[in-house]
Amino acid sequence: DFLYALQEIVPAFGASTDDLERCRLNGMVDCGERHKHIYQRAMLLVEQVKVSKGSPLVTCLLEGPSGSGKTAMAATIGIDSDFPYVKIISAETMIGLSESSKCAQIVKVFEDAYKSQLSIIILDDIERLLEYVAIGPRFSNLISQTLLVLLKRLPPKGKNMLVIGTTSEVGFLESLGICDAFSVTYHVPTLDQADAKKVLQGLNVFAEDDIDLAAEALHDMPLKKLYMLVEMAAQGSTGGSAEAIYSGKEKISLNHFYDILGDIVSIRH
Amino acid sequence: DFLYALQEIVPAFGASTDDLERCRLNGMVDCGERHKHIYQRAMLLVEQVKVSKGSPLVTCLLEGPSGSGKTAMAATIGIDSDFPYVKIISAETMIGLSESSKCAQIVKVFEDAYKSQLSIIILDDIERLLEYVAIGPRFSNLISQTLLVLLKRLPPKGKNMLVIGTTSEVGFLESLGICDAFSVTYHVPTLDQADAKKVLQGLNVFAEDDIDLAAEALHDMPLKKLYMLVEMAAQGSTGGSAEAIYSGKEKISLNHFYDILGDIVSIRH
Amino acid sequence: DFLYALQEIVPAFGASTDDLERCRLNGMVDCGERHKHIYQRAMLLVEQVKVSKGSPLVTCLLEGPSGSGKTAMAATIGIDSDFPYVKIISAETMIGLSESSKCAQIVKVFEDAYKSQLSIIILDDIERLLEYVAIGPRFSNLISQTLLVLLKRLPPKGKNMLVIGTTSEVGFLESLGICDAFSVTYHVPTLDQADAKKVLQGLNVFAEDDIDLAAEALHDMPLKKLYMLVEMAAQGSTGGSAEAIYSGKEKISLNHFYDILGDIVSIRH
Amino acid sequence: DFLYALQEIVPAFGASTDDLERCRLNGMVDCGERHKHIYQRAMLLVEQVKVSKGSPLVTCLLEGPSGSGKTAMAATIGIDSDFPYVKIISAETMIGLSESSKCAQIVKVFEDAYKSQLSIIILDDIERLLEYVAIGPRFSNLISQTLLVLLKRLPPKGKNMLVIGTTSEVGFLESLGICDAFSVTYHVPTLDQADAKKVLQGLNVFAEDDIDLAAEALHDMPLKKLYMLVEMAAQGSTGGSAEAIYSGKEKISLNHFYDILGDIVSIRH
Amino acid sequence: DFLYALQEIVPAFGASTDDLERCRLNGMVDCGERHKHIYQRAMLLVEQVKVSKGSPLVTCLLEGPSGSGKTAMAATIGIDSDFPYVKIISAETMIGLSESSKCAQIVKVFEDAYKSQLSIIILDDIERLLEYVAIGPRFSNLISQTLLVLLKRLPPKGKNMLVIGTTSEVGFLESLGICDAFSVTYHVPTLDQADAKKVLQGLNVFAEDDIDLAAEALHDMPLKKLYMLVEMAAQGSTGGSAEAIYSGKEKISLNHFYDILGDIVSIRH
Amino acid sequence: DFLYALQEIVPAFGASTDDLERCRLNGMVDCGERHKHIYQRAMLLVEQVKVSKGSPLVTCLLEGPSGSGKTAMAATIGIDSDFPYVKIISAETMIGLSESSKCAQIVKVFEDAYKSQLSIIILDDIERLLEYVAIGPRFSNLISQTLLVLLKRLPPKGKNMLVIGTTSEVGFLESLGICDAFSVTYHVPTLDQADAKKVLQGLNVFAEDDIDLAAEALHDMPLKKLYMLVEMAAQGSTGGSAEAIYSGKEKISLNHFYDILGDIVSIRH
Ligand SMILES: Nc1ncnc2c1ncn2[C@@H]1O[C@H](COP(=O)(O)OP(=O)(O)OP(=O)(O)O)[C@@H](O)[C@H]1O
Ligand SMILES: Nc1ncnc2c1ncn2[C@@H]1O[C@H](COP(=O)(O)OP(=O)(O)OP(=O)(O)O)[C@@H](O)[C@H]1O
Ligand SMILES: Nc1ncnc2c1ncn2[C@@H]1O[C@H](COP(=O)(O)OP(=O)(O)OP(=O)(O)O)[C@@H](O)[C@H]1O
Ligand SMILES: Nc1ncnc2c1ncn2[C@@H]1O[C@H](COP(=O)(O)OP(=O)(O)OP(=O)(O)O)[C@@H](O)[C@H]1O
Ligand SMILES: Nc1ncnc2c1ncn2[C@@H]1O[C@H](COP(=O)(O)OP(=O)(O)OP(=O)(O)O)[C@@H](O)[C@H]1O
Ligand SMILES: Nc1ncnc2c1ncn2[C@@H]1O[C@H](COP(=O)(O)OP(=O)(O)OP(=O)(O)O)[C@@H](O)[C@H]1O
Ligand SMILES: [Mg+2]
Ligand SMILES: [Mg+2]
Ligand SMILES: [Mg+2]
Ligand SMILES: [Mg+2]
Ligand SMILES: [Mg+2]
Ligand SMILES: [Mg+2]
Repeated sequence: DFLYALQEIVPAFGASTDDLERCRLNGMVDCGERHKHIYQRAMLLVEQVKVSKGSPLVTCLLEGPSGSGKTAMAATIGIDSDFPYVKIISAETMIGLSESSKCAQIVKVFEDAYKSQLSIIILDDIERLLEYVAIGPRFSNLISQTLLVLLKRLPPKGKNMLVIGTTSEVGFLESLGICDAFSVTYHVPTLDQADAKKVLQGLNVFAEDDIDLAAEALHDMPLKKLYMLVEMAAQGSTGGSAEAIYSGKEKISLNHFYDILGDIVSIRH
Repeated sequence: DFLYALQEIVPAFGASTDDLERCRLNGMVDCGERHKHIYQRAMLLVEQVKVSKGSPLVTCLLEGPSGSGKTAMAATIGIDSDFPYVKIISAETMIGLSESSKCAQIVKVFEDAYKSQLSIIILDDIERLLEYVAIGPRFSNLISQTLLVLLKRLPPKGKNMLVIGTTSEVGFLESLGICDAFSVTYHVPTLDQADAKKVLQGLNVFAEDDIDLAAEALHDMPLKKLYMLVEMAAQGSTGGSAEAIYSGKEKISLNHFYDILGDIVSIRH
Repeated sequence: DFLYALQEIVPAFGASTDDLERCRLNGMVDCGERHKHIYQRAMLLVEQVKVSKGSPLVTCLLEGPSGSGKTAMAATIGIDSDFPYVKIISAETMIGLSESSKCAQIVKVFEDAYKSQLSIIILDDIERLLEYVAIGPRFSNLISQTLLVLLKRLPPKGKNMLVIGTTSEVGFLESLGICDAFSVTYHVPTLDQADAKKVLQGLNVFAEDDIDLAAEALHDMPLKKLYMLVEMAAQGSTGGSAEAIYSGKEKISLNHFYDILGDIVSIRH
Repeated sequence: DFLYALQEIVPAFGASTDDLERCRLNGMVDCGERHKHIYQRAMLLVEQVKVSKGSPLVTCLLEGPSGSGKTAMAATIGIDSDFPYVKIISAETMIGLSESSKCAQIVKVFEDAYKSQLSIIILDDIERLLEYVAIGPRFSNLISQTLLVLLKRLPPKGKNMLVIGTTSEVGFLESLGICDAFSVTYHVPTLDQADAKKVLQGLNVFAEDDIDLAAEALHDMPLKKLYMLVEMAAQGSTGGSAEAIYSGKEKISLNHFYDILGDIVSIRH
Repeated sequence: DFLYALQEIVPAFGASTDDLERCRLNGMVDCGERHKHIYQRAMLLVEQVKVSKGSPLVTCLLEGPSGSGKTAMAATIGIDSDFPYVKIISAETMIGLSESSKCAQIVKVFEDAYKSQLSIIILDDIERLLEYVAIGPRFSNLISQTLLVLLKRLPPKGKNMLVIGTTSEVGFLESLGICDAFSVTYHVPTLDQADAKKVLQGLNVFAEDDIDLAAEALHDMPLKKLYMLVEMAAQGSTGGSAEAIYSGKEKISLNHFYDILGDIVSIRH
Repeated sequence: DFLYALQEIVPAFGASTDDLERCRLNGMVDCGERHKHIYQRAMLLVEQVKVSKGSPLVTCLLEGPSGSGKTAMAATIGIDSDFPYVKIISAETMIGLSESSKCAQIVKVFEDAYKSQLSIIILDDIERLLEYVAIGPRFSNLISQTLLVLLKRLPPKGKNMLVIGTTSEVGFLESLGICDAFSVTYHVPTLDQADAKKVLQGLNVFAEDDIDLAAEALHDMPLKKLYMLVEMAAQGSTGGSAEAIYSGKEKISLNHFYDILGDIVSIRH
């Protein structure tokens, strides 16, 4: 079961799991049907890769708005797979490198993985790996081409591999032809009101009666933003109340919560 | 005969055949008239090159949607030709190289081939060799120019050569003038319902009664995607059923098949 | 209280405070509700960073017209935080450097900050760090990508960080996706008539009766421009009156003030 | 007379004639009035260069669709001129070179020619020398500028030179100003029905009664394509008939000819 | 008084004044109210910089059509300031340098000036420093960014600086954001009829009765062009009369003057 | 008188005159009023430079269609000036050089000229110096900036200089701001019917009665093209008649002349 899996996070192997763990800073909670469905399907792919003879390479893209939980989901799949080789490729470890150094690092991870019977590679935030900005648009074609080829190149005989990509710029990847290069794509959504309520209940920082109002005020907010919002509101309007709230002694004032929500949301419009 | 040829795959010479074999991971099956027709015409070109005095260079382009079977077809022609020199030029072996190194490698293969009385060169996925992306569009003009010249340059006296190109971006090649540089172009299509049925029957993973429904649900799917789809469906909705299905003990549930098909197709629209 | 905080500026640590002090050449005065509100909210973020366990990285953007007081505000927050590591990253210290050297310097500041339990980094005038000009537009994508990653990358376990950005080109940052990368954004406005009056009163260079007229003539002028205007007007129409005015012996002639205001404003239209 | 000239191809001097000969792989046959007219006019220019005092440099451009016979025509003029220096500059011998190396090679040929009293330089496929592709368009401005200057620069006193250019992208050359740099331009056309009939008669591979029908089916086909088409058709629908047909024992089946023609032509539309 | 100031040009210090003097080849004459007004305001800024404590950096832009007298005006202000450090930064001394060398030279001048208690830097013809051309437009962003930063960076404590920029492409500077970076901008106009008459009277090369007609024929001509026009006309229609005219023995023929004026003006339309 | 001047071409100094002479391969003949007028005005500028004190630098642009006689005119002015330093800067001597080498060469010529009391520099075919092509358009901004500065930079005290530019792309120079940088611009036209008749009479290759018809057939042809046309026609339709015609024994057949004219002109439309 999904939630069960979310809890029993066992390290697959040494250091690398640490990296994966760091991807789900706020843990994994039940946040609605869609997230659960995607997790289950992805675990089916994990199994397919384990037993397949005809498809040594399976690729899967998780796309959705910023903060919707894609990276945490991919990391969880990696951890739960129990595969001997699970690695995340992220722009964070390649800051300031030239395009060709980044390419070399990416290729290196694939070459390493080819040596393992079963492997998972997470291409995290593909638009960032590609150095994408909407103005222009600009991006690294060298890295694009590298990914396009790696997503189709078969591992050596007898080795099977799952590649999981994440992105919040699916339209851009579509126009590069990178979406088509994935076997299957799942959309990871923001939270609807019911999902948000579940998450807020788990956090236990609102008075019982306020939870519905709070959840209603959040229209389609992504998970990660919700965690930040709650923590900001927990400081209270004059500061200092965070500890009392997290220890359960106090609750977040709904009015202050609305204020902070306004700061975060209104600017954009 | 086409199917006969498909079966009796004999290595033309040592190592290289291995590369070609790897291009048809799912073997070669009868998948309709159009594929058969193209194969036959291409084999006529092989013969023309063998006997020609006036045209030492014949060039042929296979274009069609991603996964329609172009590379497997080209590899099969190469293998079946029994020519002493058959080589595939693919972006997979040139990841991360500079444009000019790629150029040099491509030219090298042609120079090597010129030493053989009869040779076949497969330019696989030409848009990838050209580092093409639709945004811009961007591509390597250095490599474009190299191909444009190589596709017209005659081998030395007494040497004959067949060049087979493949692409799923025929519109792009058209606007580069690369299509015009080929003597002849064939369109490799996706599968219509009848073709798909033939392939599914060969795979023998559906109950007799379900085959027509399954084939009907696949509108114009390319061969390669069909193989991936079947394997995904074969895991069953809770996993673990692949072995039973491939050994013939169980059949794929049509409902689960529709589900998986939905995952793969719906996102795009 | 805001104004109190503005006055009791105590150095957090050695040399660096000097840099921050230099950012508020004209001191910090009360210039209206909005400025006060932003200051208070930012100080709540400072506190959140001090106590947070779930959000080791909080980021906040101050955007508003040129001269509205963003840099002085950010510097004041840095000074008032009493954090052991407070650093301003500004284009002024990186003139003429290559994009990659600038990148390296920026990354260096972050790496240094990661060693401190609590740190504040001010990214001053982000559009200038990005070498932005509207024509094109042109900008450094290398630096953009670096900021996009740094604004999301978590400090090591146990270290907490606040990043404050300033910009007068919020539309540009929006289209780069840099705005979305900040947890929260505040708009720092120009002065309305009441705010301007407050500032003029504090300066004490106009006759009592002239202050309202002077304040009325300034439509939505930014703070910094107002200081420059007053100093230009204080020279008098034939020069030499500055000392008398600042020592309180004379007042600025309203007519001359209008003249100078005309020079500064009219050209633009 | 034109045809006579076509036959009595005598080498002007050693190795280089070989290169020129290789440009007319299918020999030179009578293929209509326009081709003949251009040849005669070009031979008048050859004579003018031989006797001129006032125009040490004459330049002539042959433009027309791909395969219409431009290169073979230029080579024939070079061979028939009996000039001591005749050289073809072609992209084929400069694959993969940098723009500036290509430039240097081109300039070198001109410098060599300047040493000869009478010289002909053929700039073959100028768009290819310029690395032109329609997308963008892209091309080498370094080489463009070099040609623009070389086409106007006078040889040293006492030396006379004829430059013949060929291109199938006259519109592009026009917009570069390269057309204007030539003294005169001739359009080399595709074959009309009467011209095609003449060529087919010469080849003697159709039954008497079929020739008109075959010629009629070819609408404005360029010469070179016609030769390829005939050779493809000569293999027969099941292969193996080429020898019988070229030795005159059999004739090409009109139906098979139509089929092959369809393969070659239909794709484009 | 303005004109008085114009006459008593005393060197501020050694060699550099020579450079400044060379900027007013035709001396400084009274050419109307606007020029006089700008000069006076600029001299007030000089005084402000001398006494200011709150604004160590004052910046002023002179913009206007080509030849209207901007450079001569800026040079005159520099000379009349009697500041110990006065330097003109001009593209003339940086021909052919790379962008980064130019940058370095510009920065060097500022660094030198920072050592002086009082300094003036003239950024002459800013669009030329920026390597601007309208086609594209193209310009050096490296130098743009350098100027944008230098125009805001404060000199060290206790040092005051005035920066005077000149440009005839104010629209371009506006769109770069460089105009906004200046504290104040003045428009230096062409000559109206009355101004032109004053200048012609000073030159004393027309008959008394012709001066009005001549001045009328010059619609909004810039100063520098007027000097060139008069000198061309002074040669007379057959040459040789210049000496007689400048020595006052002859006057310029009005008809010949009209002719020459036509040559200079008509072409543009 | 103009024609007289045209004849008495005396070398100003050694080798360089040779270069200038080579610019008027077909000599200088009377070809109408406009050419004469421009020559006279330009000679007035030569005189102005000789005697001027106030304008050490005079600049003049000759613009007009390709082949209209601009270079020959500029060379003639240079030769007739008798100035100690006369130099032509042309793309012909800088083929294949990098932009910065070209820049250096151009600057070198100016630096050399600054050493001479009186000098003339001819910037021939400025669009070619700038590596201009209409597509894009593309051009060297480095060289553009260099010319823009050199056309305004004053020679050292006591040295006077005349710069003559030529171009057939005046619209392009206009948009670069290079036209405005010249003191005066003259348009060098093609030949009208009367002018063409004069030139043909001088050549004496037509029968008396044919001259008018021939001149009429040439609509606005540039001089240089006319010379080429006549020489082509002089070969006769079967070749070999050139000698007879130039020696006056035969005349050009009007019909053949029309034919050749058709070849040259019709293609363009
Ligand atoms: N069921 C869940 N699925 C995913 N994330 C969860 C879940 N429950 C809690 N979380 C928390 O929500 C946060 C999701 O953030 P995450 O970084 O995965 O989002 P993201 O979509 O990758 O964002 P971005 O687009 O910025 O990369 C994590 O902190 C994670 O611990
Ligand atoms: N008759 C056939 N023709 C082609 N391929 C076949 C045939 N029968 C089975 N196959 C299998 O179908 C698959 C076709 O994939 P292939 O890589 O050739 O497609 P493609 O068109 O080259 O795809 P892409 O556009 O992604 O390069 C191969 O795995 C091949 O083994
Ligand atoms: N309450 C206040 N808030 C901000 N600045 C103040 C305040 N009171 C006085 N000031 C003064 O106003 C000036 C504000 O200028 P500052 O450089 O901060 O503006 P800015 O918005 O950063 O401008 P720019 O867009 O040019 O970077 C400083 O000189 C500061 O000393
Ligand atoms: N009269 C003729 N003129 C030209 N070519 C002829 C003639 N008769 C036969 N040929 C043959 O026709 C072919 C013409 O091809 P050629 O390469 O010259 O065409 P092209 O116009 O240069 O083509 P491309 O545009 O591809 O460069 C040659 O093989 C040549 O031998
Ligand atoms: N009062 C005056 N103000 C300015 N220039 C004057 C004045 N009186 C005479 N002049 C002369 O007019 C000329 C003005 O030319 P200047 O080079 O200053 O113009 P500019 O606007 O800088 O031109 P450009 O746009 O080409 O740089 C100088 O030769 C100067 O000596
Ligand atoms: N009066 C004349 N003026 C100019 N050229 C003349 C005259 N009389 C004869 N000619 C001849 O006409 C030709 C003019 O060619 P020129 O190269 O000067 O033209 P151009 O305008 O510079 O051409 P392009 O635009 O190609 O550079 C020369 O050969 C010159 O000898
Ligand atoms: Mg993520
Ligand atoms: Mg393929
Ligand atoms: Mg600021
Ligand atoms: Mg050719
Ligand atoms: Mg100036
Ligand atoms: Mg010329």
